[in-house]
Amino acid sequence: MPEAEPGEAGPSCRIVQQSLTLLLMDQMIDLNADLGEGFGRWQLTDDDALLASVTSANVACGFHAGDPATMRRVCEQAVAHGVRIGAQVSYRDLAGFGRRAMDVPAAELAAEVAYQIGALEVFARSAGSTVAYVKPHGALYNRTVRDREQAAAVVAGVRMSGAVTASGGPLPVLGLPGSELHTAARSAGLPTVDEAFADRGYTPDGTLVPRSEPGAVLTGPEEVIKRSVRLARDGEIVAADGSTLPMRARSLCVHGDTPDAARLARRVREELTSAGVRVRAFA
Amino acid sequence: MPEAEPGEAGPSCRIVQQSLTLLLMDQMIDLNADLGEGFGRWQLTDDDALLASVTSANVACGFHAGDPATMRRVCEQAVAHGVRIGAQVSYRDLAGFGRRAMDVPAAELAAEVAYQIGALEVFARSAGSTVAYVKPHGALYNRTVRDREQAAAVVAGVRMSGAVTASGGPLPVLGLPGSELHTAARSAGLPTVDEAFADRGYTPDGTLVPRSEPGAVLTGPEEVIKRSVRLARDGEIVAADGSTLPMRARSLCVHGDTPDAARLARRVREELTSAGVRVRAFA
Amino acid sequence: MPEAEPGEAGPSCRIVQQSLTLLLMDQMIDLNADLGEGFGRWQLTDDDALLASVTSANVACGFHAGDPATMRRVCEQAVAHGVRIGAQVSYRDLAGFGRRAMDVPAAELAAEVAYQIGALEVFARSAGSTVAYVKPHGALYNRTVRDREQAAAVVAGVRMSGAVTASGGPLPVLGLPGSELHTAARSAGLPTVDEAFADRGYTPDGTLVPRSEPGAVLTGPEEVIKRSVRLARDGEIVAADGSTLPMRARSLCVHGDTPDAARLARRVREELTSAGVRVRAFA
Amino acid sequence: MPEAEPGEAGPSCRIVQQSLTLLLMDQMIDLNADLGEGFGRWQLTDDDALLASVTSANVACGFHAGDPATMRRVCEQAVAHGVRIGAQVSYRDLAGFGRRAMDVPAAELAAEVAYQIGALEVFARSAGSTVAYVKPHGALYNRTVRDREQAAAVVAGVRMSGAVTASGGPLPVLGLPGSELHTAARSAGLPTVDEAFADRGYTPDGTLVPRSEPGAVLTGPEEVIKRSVRLARDGEIVAADGSTLPMRARSLCVHGDTPDAARLARRVREELTSAGVRVRAFA
Repeated sequence: MPEAEPGEAGPSCRIVQQSLTLLLMDQMIDLNADLGEGFGRWQLTDDDALLASVTSANVACGFHAGDPATMRRVCEQAVAHGVRIGAQVSYRDLAGFGRRAMDVPAAELAAEVAYQIGALEVFARSAGSTVAYVKPHGALYNRTVRDREQAAAVVAGVRMSGAVTASGGPLPVLGLPGSELHTAARSAGLPTVDEAFADRGYTPDGTLVPRSEPGAVLTGPEEVIKRSVRLARDGEIVAADGSTLPMRARSLCVHGDTPDAARLARRVREELTSAGVRVRAFA
Repeated sequence: MPEAEPGEAGPSCRIVQQSLTLLLMDQMIDLNADLGEGFGRWQLTDDDALLASVTSANVACGFHAGDPATMRRVCEQAVAHGVRIGAQVSYRDLAGFGRRAMDVPAAELAAEVAYQIGALEVFARSAGSTVAYVKPHGALYNRTVRDREQAAAVVAGVRMSGAVTASGGPLPVLGLPGSELHTAARSAGLPTVDEAFADRGYTPDGTLVPRSEPGAVLTGPEEVIKRSVRLARDGEIVAADGSTLPMRARSLCVHGDTPDAARLARRVREELTSAGVRVRAFA
Repeated sequence: MPEAEPGEAGPSCRIVQQSLTLLLMDQMIDLNADLGEGFGRWQLTDDDALLASVTSANVACGFHAGDPATMRRVCEQAVAHGVRIGAQVSYRDLAGFGRRAMDVPAAELAAEVAYQIGALEVFARSAGSTVAYVKPHGALYNRTVRDREQAAAVVAGVRMSGAVTASGGPLPVLGLPGSELHTAARSAGLPTVDEAFADRGYTPDGTLVPRSEPGAVLTGPEEVIKRSVRLARDGEIVAADGSTLPMRARSLCVHGDTPDAARLARRVREELTSAGVRVRAFA
Repeated sequence: MPEAEPGEAGPSCRIVQQSLTLLLMDQMIDLNADLGEGFGRWQLTDDDALLASVTSANVACGFHAGDPATMRRVCEQAVAHGVRIGAQVSYRDLAGFGRRAMDVPAAELAAEVAYQIGALEVFARSAGSTVAYVKPHGALYNRTVRDREQAAAVVAGVRMSGAVTASGGPLPVLGLPGSELHTAARSAGLPTVDEAFADRGYTPDGTLVPRSEPGAVLTGPEEVIKRSVRLARDGEIVAADGSTLPMRARSLCVHGDTPDAARLARRVREELTSAGVRVRAFA
């Protein structure tokens, strides 16, 4: 850091500036939700209503959900709402909604990820946008927290796709802080975005309580809102055992597939804003 | 035609020039084949061997055949052979190999076509190439010869994909001369490439003899070779009833899914070359 | 009919009896609905609520909807409600919900129908019941009204399945009166059950108004109820042009995939009962 | 064992009898192969040729391979050859040919197994036979060697199906000796049939060498034949490390998806016969 020139702010002033910057950074959060998770006749998420509240749309790409016509529609709605489009890549498993972990060989998995990103790109493009990030779905998300080989395969697929952000940079990967997915992404030169969940239970070591266990999902809307604000404003989360964990997340996932999802997302956004947190897409 | 100015070539000379141009044009042909038509464990086409002979590879995009890992491999092989990559788009019908016509609503069909093109683009790109053209497969090919609505939907899908050639132009559509597909493509500003089939029987009015009828497929290799040379050199084809039809085609389709396909493709190419026809990708 | 013995009713009395029998027959109707039309994570029909009102459940068999776990659950619920189980067979088209007509070769279509019936049989059996009838779904239903080849293929599939009713007889086929499907079924020795739709518009010649045209679906619940009662009690239906058609149907289809489906089905049943019509499964 | 009564054979005689019985038992073996593993346009196994040599056909049921028309054809061919039909049940994974282990919840897996058995039953029945046993395929086979929950789910699915053998008994389960699958089957009252592999490498503790490791597959036909005879006649197998293991198997699996599969199967059968082993379906 260079010394202060005459007429510039002095050291103490700079510290204040830095603190303010940090504060502002901390008090800014992205809201993401899984959208377009219908398939043909079946609808699941109230995409249009959710898009009024979130800043990043994880669009299903056809492997666990998301037929082409739905992908197209959601991309157009996202652009209309000024919401960023991300590729929600998944195992090929319509029957299990991508929630069943699969031992997919690395080369196949990488190609499957690239395929999905490419398919989504055309709809993002035709809507006047681009694919801005990648987030694995369901079992692939959970598996790549710890499975180094599959994490590397997902990252290889993102790179294989050749997709770039609007500014020409490599696609960021949205995932759990400390995950193998993020480690693999950084090794490969991809930016990572730490994510927290507004309505999922956390273990004391910062991983998610498995869905098969009690406390996996926070059910009360007030609890979800309180969690969201505390996370975004204070960088803290309360684990299932009551302990408090530091948790720096640049994006907060709100679920889209519950009946009241859109209303809850709106309330989360409102309460974040009231608490002085700026809700906007991650840089 | 304006009169010859002093110092310019006279009329008779111009006629010779034009004839030479026509002759050269006529004596150039593209060879295309359907490739990458396996799916997972199942293989169908000897892609590497066929790529040694053809100039355009119609790569299956996952809807009637073609898993992502296969698509990736075929694109890399095509680039290694200097062969151009085209998107072989299809109805969503793995069980029927895309050979069962389907009444897909136009908006769905367009989005399905765009999806497939986008998926292939990433593998063409990662192999250092681009998607250079689009050719419908099987029942979609046959249906769009006469079905105006589906033809328009396929063309809408090509445009929706936003895919462009290496030189930045719109994607050409490969199809039957006089087809509704070509009419729709031209209306939408897409180039069209007339195609003939080396081994399919033709009716006297220039359409294909349906597969369910006798004479649908030419079985003898010598017959296929003779047909190919005559078509490329003389612009003629002999129909199933023995009559001779004029047939100007810029691309000739050789089939890839028969046991001797690669050998036959090589012989077709050799005999075309011997007959003075240049085998090269259409401009 | 033997002559009247002393003490028995005379001829005129018999005519009265016969009329009463006819009248009673007319005033009995089966209510069927499409159930189990979810797939994995996606739900569509409120099966349990609908089963409280209908007498025959057309259970989706996995080709347009209906994963195995759902099929199992619906069969158990049907048995718990005393409702008969039918196989709702379809084209293989999850993405299109079986609503896109397909040119499936007859031998394939027959085998696909048999496959679906066999799959459903195990769940009917494990729930303590049997598959009692077959009803094609969506585009297959519509196609087999007029397409003789596909109608014959469906019937061939029913016979190929070897499935029999609880009393050991061949499976009845539920369909539109006068359809090729019914003609083919009768030729093959299968019983047929004429069906009418509570909420679909009819043309003056007794076929359904296509979904793509106005008047295809009756939207008001009161209209649906009135139609149902008139059909069941009087054997009449009012077509889209206002004309009245005679319509003898032994089963009435109420739709299950609308938000208020279960409530409407209950009201249809109540009003039928109030009007003196007995709602019960066809014999 | 009761004492010898006067006039009965003495102890030494009984030992001879028992040895002879054991010997006869040991010198009888079933040959099974995976058949019908094509899907639509794709063929994999030369079913008709293999059926000339094997005694039990593991017929793919549509989840990893095996479309309905193929299932029908293979069942008819099996009956023509006097070969018994078994249900080769699998994960729902056409793209991975059922070779990718999946974390399928138990209730779903059980229903999926039952569904497949039911579907096959109609084709076995229409061909004049029945489903005689069940054998999991690929990753499901391997997973249920050690995974107690999935093993129990497969067995639950077999029971759920309600399928019975021609003599009315519960369906036997074919699997690896000592597998959790067999333990679960016996607990549930299902017979088990121990199986060995003619061409797979074994570890010293009697499990299969994983496909990803060297020595997983025996490549030389002479080696496969020698292994088969020694196993069937002597009840021994040589592991990958050269050690000799006792191995009592009532069925021997020969692979069907290699180019020379049919010829090798025929030679295995011939050599077994020459060595005095009776090749016949397990009782």
